[in-house]
Amino acid sequence: MAQQHLDPPTSPPAGTAPAVPAGPGPEGAPIGDALAGYLRAQATEFLRSLRQHRETGNAAGDAGDAARSLRRSARRISGSLHTFRPLLDADWSESMRPELAWLSGTLAREHAYAARLERLLGALNRLSGTTALPAQAGSAPAAPKGNLTVGAAKAGALLDRQLTLARTRAHSAALQALGSSRFHAVADSVAVLASEVPLAPAADTTDLRPLARAAQDRLADAVTALPLVTAGHPYNAEALVHGLSADTAPQPQDAPWHQVRLLLRLHRYAHEVLNGGQCPADGRLLGAGQALNRHRDAAEAAAAAAAAARTPRIAPATAYALGVLHADQRHEVEAARFAFQQAWQKEAVPTP
Amino acid sequence: MAQQHLDPPTSPPAGTAPAVPAGPGPEGAPIGDALAGYLRAQATEFLRSLRQHRETGNAAGDAGDAARSLRRSARRISGSLHTFRPLLDADWSESMRPELAWLSGTLAREHAYAARLERLLGALNRLSGTTALPAQAGSAPAAPKGNLTVGAAKAGALLDRQLTLARTRAHSAALQALGSSRFHAVADSVAVLASEVPLAPAADTTDLRPLARAAQDRLADAVTALPLVTAGHPYNAEALVHGLSADTAPQPQDAPWHQVRLLLRLHRYAHEVLNGGQCPADGRLLGAGQALNRHRDAAEAAAAAAAAARTPRIAPATAYALGVLHADQRHEVEAARFAFQQAWQKEAVPTP
Repeated sequence: MAQQHLDPPTSPPAGTAPAVPAGPGPEGAPIGDALAGYLRAQATEFLRSLRQHRETGNAAGDAGDAARSLRRSARRISGSLHTFRPLLDADWSESMRPELAWLSGTLAREHAYAARLERLLGALNRLSGTTALPAQAGSAPAAPKGNLTVGAAKAGALLDRQLTLARTRAHSAALQALGSSRFHAVADSVAVLASEVPLAPAADTTDLRPLARAAQDRLADAVTALPLVTAGHPYNAEALVHGLSADTAPQPQDAPWHQVRLLLRLHRYAHEVLNGGQCPADGRLLGAGQALNRHRDAAEAAAAAAAAARTPRIAPATAYALGVLHADQRHEVEAARFAFQQAWQKEAVPTP
Repeated sequence: MAQQHLDPPTSPPAGTAPAVPAGPGPEGAPIGDALAGYLRAQATEFLRSLRQHRETGNAAGDAGDAARSLRRSARRISGSLHTFRPLLDADWSESMRPELAWLSGTLAREHAYAARLERLLGALNRLSGTTALPAQAGSAPAAPKGNLTVGAAKAGALLDRQLTLARTRAHSAALQALGSSRFHAVADSVAVLASEVPLAPAADTTDLRPLARAAQDRLADAVTALPLVTAGHPYNAEALVHGLSADTAPQPQDAPWHQVRLLLRLHRYAHEVLNGGQCPADGRLLGAGQALNRHRDAAEAAAAAAAAARTPRIAPATAYALGVLHADQRHEVEAARFAFQQAWQKEAVPTP
């Protein structure tokens, strides 16, 4: 009976988008109904992806798609619980969010290591003046060959070894997580959500828009605190400051940007709730979000190159190539901040 | 009698600019007169700087100023001989230019090594998040200390050792050159130039402007061949392509930019000839020239970091720091190209 929660009450054919409830009626403000509809749809999508993930088993590409889709729903459920907290049963909502974060974090890691390796090997090829090798779907790209210096080739092999190992471990951890009782408890909660959203008594009369606006204000405040004037000056050389400092912790200057990335997501999800599941096509938000994803990816790739350079007994040529690679990715960080600044200043955020 | 040529016919008080002949009369085009006046003034300035250099001896700062001033005049004489060739005695002009190039090249080296070391140590400090130490006049800045990683500190010490050695050798070479008979021959020729410019018979009737315009056209053609569209896109990541390729020769992608730097100078000097020794204040040309100087300095600093990384038996941490430093300077190269593109597109070159 442990599998019963995998059958959502309304089971859309696999591969199609779940039915999304209509937005607010023309006469009234969006209230609890709209939120409940959104959460039900995301829960249904979560369960569909989970079923797909089990069915595809270890077929790398399909399982990857299913995991991505699972994480996508988990993020949306978690984000909506946060933004629209006053409309939901508080205890349930509080207990649900960390579990969803644990699940999507665990599922994200394998993909993140694979993408990081691909980014770093691509950069090594670019830095060596060779054309980037096309990545094979579902597997790490081949280590760079040909015109590389010994240092670049060795750096590529070292990163390949380290990140492939990390990826394999993340894969095992994800499989273990999906078989755990902790996971079954999450899946049970989501199955309940797919049929019955635990709304608070106030949900029938609470306008969603002020809560969505508060999410937007939190985003706007966080963006205001960013050093956007500096970021808007090309080649400001900010991202590499501390690039050689003794501190090996993640760069503290990155944190406010990562925070804006999360707040931008919450803002988008709140938009979706108000718009019957659809995020209005907004090139500005899309561009800003993509820039912040690139910022995060480049920052983590730069950290991976720096970490690899601390491997004992590597050759100086390998360390040199990793230093070039680290600086290159930190410049990608700076480029991403510039791109965010450019996207953001295009026009003001429309009020929901 | 070897020193006699050091007394120019008109000897301005040391420290003041040499008397510059007036430009073309309002009624006629600038002809040979203007060129002869310009060359005489530059030759006088050359001899004044030479006397100053001998008097200051080894006092680093003053001798540096005198050497800079010597090179400045040598470049202007050489450039004018090139641009206005048809107005000058061909044999004399042909034999003079390589000698002036040898002299200013020999004198430039010591300063270049000192400036390169200062640039690299400043960058190491910036990359380590420490404030840059103020450079002491006439001596290399102290090696970076404090918050540096072992790698950055060792890289700084290695660069300090290598570039200080190169600078000391360049200093000896310059002293040796200034005592050589080859140098005395150059100085004699310049002394002749200060009193009597060997004009060709056609000089009295030849308009200088078409020759100046030809210099401008050569500049414009060379700029047209630059990848300015790419350079105008911030963070195009072009300058680091081949940053890790096996080829240790100077980056071939830099050559056209170095060439434009030289042509821009020739264009400026031709302007000076037409304007009675003054270069019209043109922020655009100034900005473009500064960007190209920065391009050259950063390219050479990046090459010095890469060369230091090939020192046998260095620690991996040192090599890593040099890799970061190399990439940082290549990004300075890219930033300088962007700055050139921005300066250049401001408005079209005014026709002389």
